[in-house]
Parts: sequence; C-alpha cells; structure tokens
Amino acid sequence: MAPETDDRPHHDVSFLADLDLVGEVSLGTSDRDEHATDWGTDEADAVRPDAVVYPESTADVAAVVAAANERGVPVTAYAAGTGLESNAAPLHAGISMDMTRMDAIHEIRPDDLQVDVGPGAIGADVDEAVARHGLFFPPLPSSGDISTIGGMIATDASGMRTVKYGEVADWLLELEVVLADGSVTTVGSKAAKTSAGYNLKDLIVGSEGTLAIVTRATLELAGRPEQIKGGRAVFPTLDDATAAISDAVTAGVDVAKIELFDAETAMLANAYSDAALPERPMVFVEFHANHGIDDEIAFCRTVFEAHNVEQFEMASGERMDELWQARKDITYAAEAYDPDREMGQPGDVTVPIGSYPEMIRAVKDVAAEYDLFVPCFGHAGDGNLHYFVLRDPDDPEEVARAEAAYGELVERALELGGTATGEHGIGAGKRKYLEPEHGAAAVGAMRAIKQALDPRGTLNPGKVVPDER
Amino acid sequence: MAPETDDRPHHDVSFLADLDLVGEVSLGTSDRDEHATDWGTDEADAVRPDAVVYPESTADVAAVVAAANERGVPVTAYAAGTGLESNAAPLHAGISMDMTRMDAIHEIRPDDLQVDVGPGAIGADVDEAVARHGLFFPPLPSSGDISTIGGMIATDASGMRTVKYGEVADWLLELEVVLADGSVTTVGSKAAKTSAGYNLKDLIVGSEGTLAIVTRATLELAGRPEQIKGGRAVFPTLDDATAAISDAVTAGVDVAKIELFDAETAMLANAYSDAALPERPMVFVEFHANHGIDDEIAFCRTVFEAHNVEQFEMASGERMDELWQARKDITYAAEAYDPDREMGQPGDVTVPIGSYPEMIRAVKDVAAEYDLFVPCFGHAGDGNLHYFVLRDPDDPEEVARAEAAYGELVERALELGGTATGEHGIGAGKRKYLEPEHGAAAVGAMRAIKQALDPRGTLNPGKVVPDER
Repeated sequence: MAPETDDRPHHDVSFLADLDLVGEVSLGTSDRDEHATDWGTDEADAVRPDAVVYPESTADVAAVVAAANERGVPVTAYAAGTGLESNAAPLHAGISMDMTRMDAIHEIRPDDLQVDVGPGAIGADVDEAVARHGLFFPPLPSSGDISTIGGMIATDASGMRTVKYGEVADWLLELEVVLADGSVTTVGSKAAKTSAGYNLKDLIVGSEGTLAIVTRATLELAGRPEQIKGGRAVFPTLDDATAAISDAVTAGVDVAKIELFDAETAMLANAYSDAALPERPMVFVEFHANHGIDDEIAFCRTVFEAHNVEQFEMASGERMDELWQARKDITYAAEAYDPDREMGQPGDVTVPIGSYPEMIRAVKDVAAEYDLFVPCFGHAGDGNLHYFVLRDPDDPEEVARAEAAYGELVERALELGGTATGEHGIGAGKRKYLEPEHGAAAVGAMRAIKQALDPRGTLNPGKVVPDER
Repeated sequence: MAPETDDRPHHDVSFLADLDLVGEVSLGTSDRDEHATDWGTDEADAVRPDAVVYPESTADVAAVVAAANERGVPVTAYAAGTGLESNAAPLHAGISMDMTRMDAIHEIRPDDLQVDVGPGAIGADVDEAVARHGLFFPPLPSSGDISTIGGMIATDASGMRTVKYGEVADWLLELEVVLADGSVTTVGSKAAKTSAGYNLKDLIVGSEGTLAIVTRATLELAGRPEQIKGGRAVFPTLDDATAAISDAVTAGVDVAKIELFDAETAMLANAYSDAALPERPMVFVEFHANHGIDDEIAFCRTVFEAHNVEQFEMASGERMDELWQARKDITYAAEAYDPDREMGQPGDVTVPIGSYPEMIRAVKDVAAEYDLFVPCFGHAGDGNLHYFVLRDPDDPEEVARAEAAYGELVERALELGGTATGEHGIGAGKRKYLEPEHGAAAVGAMRAIKQALDPRGTLNPGKVVPDER
C-alpha cells in the first residue's frame, strides 16, 4: 500500500487508452496500491504507479513500452511481488507492467529437455507440467510455489538445489525480451551452449527489468532422479557443522541440498511448530540419484562423523518431508517468533566457502555486540548465509541498532571477498552496497550499459544502478 | 605470417617507448608476423600489427591500453594463438598485446576450491598445479594442453567435459580486467554466486577482448574424482548411436564425456594411426565418480543395448587412454588425411539435442549434394557437432563448393534453433552469421554495448560486432 501522501512526480498515462491492447489497463487505486510494494519495500518509500497494465501478449508489452519510452514514462515489470529487495516496486511511478497473466506453458519438448514458458508462470506449475514427461526444472528455488519464472530471471534467483544444479540462470537457454524502445528480440540460444556474440542473456538475467522485459523463456530441464532421500544431522557446535559441510563439498559428496541451522534458528522453529528440534546446530541434506543413493548417504555420514555428528537421520517420502519441515517454514517461523519484533530485511550475503565459518562467527559477534537476536541459516554449500536481525519497529533506537548491525554484516562479507546479495538481487534495498562491492569503474561500466540500452531511463528507473534523475 | 603487401592503415606506436613498462615491446617483423594470425586466420586476410607488447603486470596492460585509447590505436589481446575463428588476429593493426608472460598461478586456496591465475596460464599447467591439492578445473577443454585460460575466457570455451561440468564460464568466479580507458576493475565475485548488479563477468566472457582485457582470473575448482573409467561403444548405424546418446542424456546417465564419431571420422583415424577402429559410428564415453562407477557404466550399457550397441569396452588407466586416443588425435588425423586437401575451418554448430540426429543427416545430405568428404564428430551430449569440409586449395571450384556447403550447414543449424558456433567464438570467421542468428535488434544491442564500453573502438576493433570504421 502506498502512503497517503505520495508527492513524487507522477505521469500522464492517458495514452494507454489509445493502444490496441489485448490485456487490461487498470487505473484503480487499490490495484495501483498493490503494485506500489513487493515483500521488500519499506512502506514509507512506496510510490503508487499511475497505472497497472496486465499484458496478455508480447505485442502488448512491446506497444506499451514503445509508447511509454516515447513519452518518458517509466515502466516497471511486476509479477508475484515476492521480491525481497524492492526489486519490482516502482521508484518513479509510471506504469507497473504486471506479467502474471502471461503465465502460459507454451511448449514442452521432452526430446530437447526444454520448455517454453511465459514470465508469469509460477515455478511449481512449470515443474508440475514437465513432471508428466519425467522431467523437472532443477534450480527451482524454495519460493517456487509462489514466485514466477520472470521474477526468478529478474533477480538472478537460486536456492537450495543450487549446490548440485547451479542457479536459475544456468538453466535458461533463450529469452524473448522487449527492449526499451519496444523492439522485440531473442537473446541466448535454444542450443545447450553458444559462443556467438555478446552474452546478452546473462546480462539481462538479474537486471530486474532495467534493461529489458522478458516475455518468454526457454528453460532447460533434466530427467527426474529415480531416488530421493534426505534428512537431518545434528552437531555439537557450529564449527563442527560448518567444517562438516565444507568437507562434504570439497570431497565431492553429491548433495542436492545442504542447509545449515544455527541453534537460535532451531529455537525459532520450535516456537513455531511441534517439531521439537534439538536446539543445536544442524544440517539438512537431500540426495538425488538414479541408483546407489545409500552409498552416497554412507559417504556423507563418514564425512560428518569426522566432525562429531550426534544424530544423522535420513529417510524418503513423508518422513523425509517431516525432517525437512522446519527448514521450509523458517521465514514464517521468524515472522511469528516475537509478536513485538519484525524480522527486517533477510540477510543474503555469500562468501567463499572457506570463509563460511568466519562469516558465521561474525554474525554471532555482531549479535552480541549490538545486543540483538540474529538467528542464521542458509545454503551453506554455496557459502550463502541468511539471517534475520529482529527488531521492535516501535523502538527507533533498536531499529537503528538493527540497521547498523545489518550493514556491518554486509561489510564483513565484502571484506571476506563475498557479495552483498547472493540470490535476492540488488533492488532498491542494496543499491548502496553496489559500489563498495564492485568499485567505481565497474559501476561506471554498468551505468554505461544502462544508458546504452535504455537511454531514456524508461525501464524500472533507479534500480540496480541508481539513476541520475 | 602477414602477406607481403599489407596495405591497410597502420598506426604510429612510438609512444610505447615512453611508457614505463616492466614487459617488453617488440617492433621486430617476425614477432609482428607471428601475431598477425591465429589458427583460424586466412593468410590472405592477415594484418601485421605495428607492435607486439608482452606485458608482465596489470599495470603494464593498463598503461598501454590507456595510452593507445587516447591515440586511437587498436589493442588486440593475443595469447597461444590457437583460436579457430581468427579471434585474436588484429583486423586494424595497432598493438598485439601478448598475454603469455602473465602466466602465473598466483594463489591456490584449497579451502575455497579456488585458484587465481594470470590469463596467459596454460590450462594444463593450472590443472597440474591444483592436482597437488587433490583438485581439478572441471571444464578444461581438450585444447587445454596448449591453450591459455585467457583464450578460453575470450572465446567462451567449452569441451568434452561440458556435458557433466558445464562451460569454462560456469567455473569463473571473478575477473580482473582492464577497460578500454585503461581503468582496472574486478567483475564477478569470489563468492560462488552473486546477484549484485549487472553480470559484467559473463558479458566479458566470450567478448574476445573487445570489451576488456582480462589480467587475472579466479577459477572455481572441484575435488578430483576417485574413480575414472572410460572407453568406446560401436553402433551399427548413426541413428542408433545418436539415439543412444540422446537417451543416455535424458535418462541422466552421469557421463563426464560422451563423444560421437561417424564412420568417415573412424576412417580418418585409421589412416592416421594403427588404431584399427571398426569403420562404423561409435561413441566414446568417460565416467567420473567417487564410488559406484561400475553401476553407472552398467546403467549406460543398458541404455546403449536398447539401441543395438555392438561393442562396449570400458577400462581405466592406459587401456582407457588407448581406447580414447583416436578421439584425441582427430584434428591431426584430419590434417594428415589427404595430402591434396585441407580441412578448412572446423564446423562448430550446436543444436537442441533432440535435433542432433537431424543435424547429422543434414551433414550427410550436404556432403552428397556437394560431392565432398565431410567427416563429422563432436560433443554429442551438448548437441555440439564438429565437421571438416575437406577441400583442395588449388581447385578454386572445389574451394567454392566447400565454402557453400559449410555455409549451408550453418544455416541448417540455425533453422533447427541452433547456433553458428558452440565453443569457438564468433571471431572474424563467423561475424556474418551473427545477425542471421540473433536478429538485428539483438546485434544492435551488442553494438550499443560495444560503443558504451569502448567508445573509441580501441579493443580488438571489428571483432564480434563488425565495426563501422
């Protein structure tokens, strides 16, 4: 919801009525309010777009972008609104381009291991459709039940299965996109690999709709594994748990997921459900194989035993799901934990795997120093750490303290050679870390690219590289 | 070697003498001649650079690029010169920046699974250095014994092991680069994943030194597999062989390499060595595992048996190397095959895997139609097909016929949704296919990016996107 007083400059969008669109144009206040924020937008910063367009075809998107570009009206692509860094909330009003009706699963080509989908397709729906052919979309993040393929592309998403299968970007073959002037093109290739020309595809991935709007994506698929097992291992100390993870990755244990909980996160989980977890550091693992899965699990157990593992329970089917439930619920648990406290922006730093234990110690040190509760967990196999810096929104001093602690952790990750954001995108939320992370020359190059591909600043202006409006 | 009469515009490079470089500047004719071509340059097109610089530090590269950029003098990075599309041969003379002395293996960080290397480091030397820590660089192409990491980055290289491990690009974490104005920056991150800002790293990969010159690369590594086995399977028909490969990939047989030979390629191999291959279609496979490798081989055999496999021999160690030798020697065999005929530019099309049999049929049809000998082979698991269109260089009619056949095969690959070049880069050799493959809007975007990052056209001008000089 946009604030009552939204006094930033707005735009004349009456030209939308003259376009011959299949999709709907909405000028309603509640629709516009809904598109002023995503999960990561601070309400105080929300800007209500002047119109919401629901395109139903590539031609709709192209017509709107071309007309808006001519008139200097911003266009910001929007979909499920589940972004965590205010990636899809417009900073300069204009048009919110809601892609959710372009959710078709256009064509499944099992022999090519490919599917063509609209950007509004929900990840889980794609997975379900291709499952009928014995296939799956390996890098699907855990938000895939609610987030769209377009949003995953826009934020360069990844998730639990990235440790085995890589990121969403690694499974994108070809994108159809609308450029800032309204022209339509494809980037990438339906071939599994290409070295023909500049890699525009991976430039557009993660650009949050600032360089182009994706209207169709060809995804690569894989055969569903015959065997899936997983479960939970409990360790006496965090150092044991992180050393076990590091050794497992280095030794090549073939895990499909490997996730860490610190004791505080286990505490959150217990408060939320009847999971009755031991309140100690633990590692969730999942294995995918076509045969020999028990050998792989035994290999993993051997590595974990060298690090004093106390419990090691693996299962399949429902029991596996039970063992994993606490990990799946963690965001809800953090929201529910303390009625007086909000969880704030989730941390998403990623560091070289050898520095993961040090990053976790930094979380503990910063939590103690700032006297805050900071449960942490994450995609440990990739060095990706999430954490919540809980704070009382009615206590400005505590909010300030939480923000300072949050910033210090990002700085610590950068010092360790890491990144401010491993998988949530830079959005509006983390723009201030872009230059500290990449340096002025690299940000200058990014700005030059934005200027080259979107000279009028039409597409999601102000995101990724701060604009100079 | 540059031709006797090289009448294109050349440049005054006397400013190089005033730069305070650690590395050497060479104005010698033989040095300059050597840098006029790489393996893919047609001698008739060779342009002798005006100077060769052998930088020994990032500061050397930056100083030369900055000074050249001010003066409008082209700078083209060069290394092993093994490119197949004239990627590193200067089109507009100027300075050839020979990176081979920047070949240090700076730092191996086993706990991070990372190594920092100079761009001139030979792939096999990197692999050997990290082997002492039980690690390897998984995507190393088969040219890795002679080609450099910088060249692999410049051409977006991949190879036999890509079917399991992905491309070189997938294992690059961070690059230090010199931009066209001489500024130095890093792109990417030492973290295993990042979604912070535009992906400049993958834009620079495959850009053949037209957007930046790489001065240092952080590579990701993996633990060496405990078990390696491989060998050869022979099939009665090409259709059987390609169907077996397709099924193996779709079913998730965990191959580290899977390579096809047609009967004609087996014939080349027999003429070159005493391999005594059956002159029938065959598939070379290699498996990497930490345990259970024989189960995986049995799984593969089951899939191959459903496609009438006639011989299936797998081994380890020396016997495996013997079984694979013909595949490793194929380029030399093609060169040696017919003393009257050259092999020409090797084809490098890649198509969606479901269309691989159709692409191979196209090769056979075109060979018959044009009355040419066109042995084909390739990285079948990725849909990547190589072929040689043999031609007599002294027979202009046959050369013209071979060129026409070559072009028709690229067009056929594009019609099948494929790419003109899977792993050799676009270079000078395949620029004419860039727009047919990607369309005018995408090439326009590429040109805009080149203009934004290298407004004076200093870096390897004329490559990838044809310049407008």
